[in-house]
Amino acid sequence: MAMSAADRSGGAGGWSATPVEPQLAQDIAIASRICAMENVFDGFGHLSVRHPDRPDRFLMTKSMAPALAFADDVVELDLDSNPAADERRPLFLERFIHGEIYKRRPDVHSIVHSHAYSVIPFTLVERPMQAMFHTAAFVAEGLPVFDIADEFGETDMLVSDRAKGDALARCLGQKPACLMRGHGFVAVGANLKHAVARAIYTDVNARIELQANSLDGSIKPLSAEEGKLADAVNLAGVGRPWELWKSRVLRDMQTDAGKA
Amino acid sequence: MAMSAADRSGGAGGWSATPVEPQLAQDIAIASRICAMENVFDGFGHLSVRHPDRPDRFLMTKSMAPALAFADDVVELDLDSNPAADERRPLFLERFIHGEIYKRRPDVHSIVHSHAYSVIPFTLVERPMQAMFHTAAFVAEGLPVFDIADEFGETDMLVSDRAKGDALARCLGQKPACLMRGHGFVAVGANLKHAVARAIYTDVNARIELQANSLDGSIKPLSAEEGKLADAVNLAGVGRPWELWKSRVLRDMQTDAGKA
Amino acid sequence: MAMSAADRSGGAGGWSATPVEPQLAQDIAIASRICAMENVFDGFGHLSVRHPDRPDRFLMTKSMAPALAFADDVVELDLDSNPAADERRPLFLERFIHGEIYKRRPDVHSIVHSHAYSVIPFTLVERPMQAMFHTAAFVAEGLPVFDIADEFGETDMLVSDRAKGDALARCLGQKPACLMRGHGFVAVGANLKHAVARAIYTDVNARIELQANSLDGSIKPLSAEEGKLADAVNLAGVGRPWELWKSRVLRDMQTDAGKA
Amino acid sequence: MAMSAADRSGGAGGWSATPVEPQLAQDIAIASRICAMENVFDGFGHLSVRHPDRPDRFLMTKSMAPALAFADDVVELDLDSNPAADERRPLFLERFIHGEIYKRRPDVHSIVHSHAYSVIPFTLVERPMQAMFHTAAFVAEGLPVFDIADEFGETDMLVSDRAKGDALARCLGQKPACLMRGHGFVAVGANLKHAVARAIYTDVNARIELQANSLDGSIKPLSAEEGKLADAVNLAGVGRPWELWKSRVLRDMQTDAGKA
Repeated sequence: MAMSAADRSGGAGGWSATPVEPQLAQDIAIASRICAMENVFDGFGHLSVRHPDRPDRFLMTKSMAPALAFADDVVELDLDSNPAADERRPLFLERFIHGEIYKRRPDVHSIVHSHAYSVIPFTLVERPMQAMFHTAAFVAEGLPVFDIADEFGETDMLVSDRAKGDALARCLGQKPACLMRGHGFVAVGANLKHAVARAIYTDVNARIELQANSLDGSIKPLSAEEGKLADAVNLAGVGRPWELWKSRVLRDMQTDAGKA
Repeated sequence: MAMSAADRSGGAGGWSATPVEPQLAQDIAIASRICAMENVFDGFGHLSVRHPDRPDRFLMTKSMAPALAFADDVVELDLDSNPAADERRPLFLERFIHGEIYKRRPDVHSIVHSHAYSVIPFTLVERPMQAMFHTAAFVAEGLPVFDIADEFGETDMLVSDRAKGDALARCLGQKPACLMRGHGFVAVGANLKHAVARAIYTDVNARIELQANSLDGSIKPLSAEEGKLADAVNLAGVGRPWELWKSRVLRDMQTDAGKA
Repeated sequence: MAMSAADRSGGAGGWSATPVEPQLAQDIAIASRICAMENVFDGFGHLSVRHPDRPDRFLMTKSMAPALAFADDVVELDLDSNPAADERRPLFLERFIHGEIYKRRPDVHSIVHSHAYSVIPFTLVERPMQAMFHTAAFVAEGLPVFDIADEFGETDMLVSDRAKGDALARCLGQKPACLMRGHGFVAVGANLKHAVARAIYTDVNARIELQANSLDGSIKPLSAEEGKLADAVNLAGVGRPWELWKSRVLRDMQTDAGKA
Repeated sequence: MAMSAADRSGGAGGWSATPVEPQLAQDIAIASRICAMENVFDGFGHLSVRHPDRPDRFLMTKSMAPALAFADDVVELDLDSNPAADERRPLFLERFIHGEIYKRRPDVHSIVHSHAYSVIPFTLVERPMQAMFHTAAFVAEGLPVFDIADEFGETDMLVSDRAKGDALARCLGQKPACLMRGHGFVAVGANLKHAVARAIYTDVNARIELQANSLDGSIKPLSAEEGKLADAVNLAGVGRPWELWKSRVLRDMQTDAGKA
């Protein structure tokens, strides 16, 4: 768990061994605030982006309420989830979720970990979530449920080391998201916007499914094929909701910056 | 699918062959933002108005998050859903919903297409929505459900060409709204305010019916006759909620304009 | 239905035959906005106060969205629900609810008529609402349900004349509130704060009861005696939430005034 | 019930016999507003902190809507819930909840009393609340339900004297929270942040459990051991959500101060 000398070597004098474009750090802060605005995060939850130039590194904020994030809160970590440079700021206990998934999923370049309240019920019952509408089409692929107790017995529920992160990554497999019993879920994507949109629509789908389930009569969800076809359209069009979400959090960001 | 020379002929040099009053374009932007404020739109969804002087044309914004719309985002389309003038801005993939309904329904002068979350459950089960209260009286007329799979098999769920738009228009028939399986709904009206009010109250009615259905005991909804009588009063009084909705979105609009 | 000469006589030149304190008109506007903020009103709904000096008159705003009310929107009406003075502004179609209840209930000095969404389900099923907690204690008295169809057959659901208002007033009897099938409810009180608080907590109680009903197991609501004892405390303490509600709507009111 | 001379002796001329750090009074005001923002309080509800230098005293605001609290609204009380100094401002009727729990629980230094709407259903049915996710881990310890009728028969439901406060404190026992039939709940903690976080997550857990319960299939909640382990992590990390909550209420506080 200790940071290797190699990991630390590049960090002398800077917060990051490999300079990150300021716009990417800003996007991470914006995305953190978007997830807070859209019920994906409360005071807890976090997201990350794989380093664009160094696939063995990833970026996330220090341990903090994501709704308060700014670009200069971003920290660089290696895939063992150790800081890539000298770092005195506190780190998220569950950063191992990110490192271990990046190891097993070269296609993944962004990860969101959430405790969204409406998703929790689906982590507690034997009942696979289904895709309620085309905007949440990726759900039709089938989302696995990770029960930390299966491999680790009674714990504090946290994915707080590499072994637990790896177990979660194995449960996720090649899927776009994985529910976590009594805890929340992770959503992944080929870029930040994809991962954020999937996190948001996992929550939206859960809210719709809770309502649909309360009606009498059987539900006809999206089929696997419908889900696959619709998901491709969604990923191509993710810029549209992103512009809306971004415009709404930028106001708060300016207010908070004025205060700081 | 290609635009005809006739369609394009008038467009040389301008964004629209037939000038639209600035107030109408502004109303389209306001209505888009109202629908976003009232849970009818999230980052997706769109609405249109038939051209007041040319019934073979309609107006809607370019492809964008409706909550961010301004008057100069409005585009003119013909009833095949092709732009009436040279247009480089992206258009909504599902603009065919609008063109095809305008073809079949001369009485319709405005259309809203929504993915409102509370309505989705009613698109997935065999259970007709019922009118819960007088403000949603038009629901008592009976809203059909369009399943795109019936005619087109497994698709990406989108009404993304004229054939699919026509199938939806046929399912809508002479009704004020039509649910769309795993997707959302369309609401139509004799003018913009009517269509917007119907979209908003389709969502409100869905929310109430989900709750009413959870209670024990049978529901006594509005009868068809009660619905017809009450709807006439609602349409006459639509100006009242409109003033409220408009006053609330104008603040955001001014803030966004200041930013732009 | 025509206004009598006597009713009109005092109105020459002024909007009201009997001057109303500006603070009372302001309180009516504030209360209208409070009900909008607290889910009791959307674009529709209205409230009134009996004239403090003339018990045969009452005050309410002209027909408008209550969230936009200002003091100078207040109109004076007689107990037949005709304007007490020359009045060119539109009046609420359902003002007869107020006039007829004031006739039958000398103890009532304020009335709220609402379409609160969470209350509608309880107007549609044969299942009396129960008091879920002490703040909604008055519900334990038992709230009758008025079905306009019982006496008037299939209508537009509106209480739009004196006969319908009187039927509603008879159904209300001596109770603090009366549900209205497929429509909403009325709440009454000895003063404006009492009526507003009862309207708000009718909605809160409905929301809680919908949730409680969804749990397995029988509910133990407040008994009639507990309700009576707790209601007395609530009425005495109504100033506390009122100060909060008022402080929150005053901001909007100033913003709207600045715009006007 | 009368204040003893000893209690009053130090109060001559000041609002408090034992000076309280201004920051603590400010934190009480902030916490009151946080609870209002997070659905724990509406116009009603209150919280307290044990005096840091005098364990036989506690601090809470005067009787008021907690969302409007400022530091100078804080009052000092003894453990019989009498004011420690001359005090003309109104006090909460249910301040005895606080005094009596402080007597029986030396480990408790802060108490929140709430009527959170989503919690009420669990006070009305024979069905223990279960811990739905790790952030509400303390629920796994098992929360007792206090029915005031068991000992006092039909009352106004209020814990308005020492005997009722003591009965509630006995029901609470050594638990972190206690539900109150037809009324609400109390949450306690070793400090203000712990009590507030527990109050907030009692409500969140209730909302999740209402949804989980509506799904078909049995729920697998956190076990007692998982709850114990996770709660320790939560208490250590409470500063993170606190910073978020605090930053959000400070805006309102400044606005309200500007108005006053």
